[in-house]
Amino acid sequence: VPFIQQVENLSHESLIRRASSMVTDSANTYLSQTTQALVDSITQYAKALHTLIALQRRYLASLGKLSTAEEDAIWQVIIGQRVEVGDRLDECNRFESNWINAINLCEMAAEAAYNTGAEHASVTAKTNLQVAKVQVEEVRQISVDAERKLAETQAEEIQRMAEYASFIESGGDDVHEAYLRED
Amino acid sequence: VPFIQQVENLSHESLIRRASSMVTDSANTYLSQTTQALVDSITQYAKALHTLIALQRRYLASLGKLSTAEEDAIWQVIIGQRVEVGDRLDECNRFESNWINAINLCEMAAEAAYNTGAEHASVTAKTNLQVAKVQVEEVRQISVDAERKLAETQAEEIQRMAEYASFIESGGDDVHEAYLRED
Repeated sequence: VPFIQQVENLSHESLIRRASSMVTDSANTYLSQTTQALVDSITQYAKALHTLIALQRRYLASLGKLSTAEEDAIWQVIIGQRVEVGDRLDECNRFESNWINAINLCEMAAEAAYNTGAEHASVTAKTNLQVAKVQVEEVRQISVDAERKLAETQAEEIQRMAEYASFIESGGDDVHEAYLRED
Repeated sequence: VPFIQQVENLSHESLIRRASSMVTDSANTYLSQTTQALVDSITQYAKALHTLIALQRRYLASLGKLSTAEEDAIWQVIIGQRVEVGDRLDECNRFESNWINAINLCEMAAEAAYNTGAEHASVTAKTNLQVAKVQVEEVRQISVDAERKLAETQAEEIQRMAEYASFIESGGDDVHEAYLRED
């Protein structure tokens, strides 16, 4: 009887250890997929921001040089790009929520694997967690830089618009307005 | 370009959904293994308790009827059975810790699956969680009943030993004193 019991115990523990390794493996895959999605979506968001920055700079550079119709056209493009930036940010947030779920699942699976004696699975999961966090941190830095640049461009735009408005008020004519683009 | 982007998004979401389903599946397996192990270990613990109860009742029933050597022998068996009960309880606690990890993992995986749109996987996991909790609750009730019965037997033992002691004091013979050592 003690022999049979021992075999039963080994069996339970070994089945639990295997099942726990399986959870860790699938959590790794889930983390890998969500990390890739989040990294891609942040990259797309940063690209959309850079496009918006370029459009706004082009608008500032052409201040006073375009007809009302041309200016309207540029503004339509800028507004469209702002919508695009917002959509990209929504996507980032959606994938980030999946990614955070994956991080939590992976941490819990690594802990559970360690407790069942599946140390290799636990170490692998912890390594993957580190790599995923670094990857996301790096790409996030790129989007933070782009957001900072956009804020700078918008501050510049406000200043330039104010200067342009006071120039108009002080009696500048349409031809002279053009000098502003050299600023 | 919008077409390619759309395909990329679908792909990310579909890969995440699949990976999340995989985590849910493996968490279900892990829960199933830990539930089986916990149910078995609680059953064994309850059996060990019932054996201990039977031994203590046999000891009480034979009070004053056995030689010192026979009583020592019974006490050795009772002490051995108490160690067995303790070992079984340790095993229950070990498997319970795995089981709680599995419950938490399964709940988190079900939530994550729901958020990725893997609703079937989420519903399955939640059903499994319910079944696992009911199974453990049922077998736990059996061990709680056994613990209550043991406490009753021990209370009865204390009372019987006290009655026996006062019987000895009021003129019982020397042979019977031997049984009081174990009080």
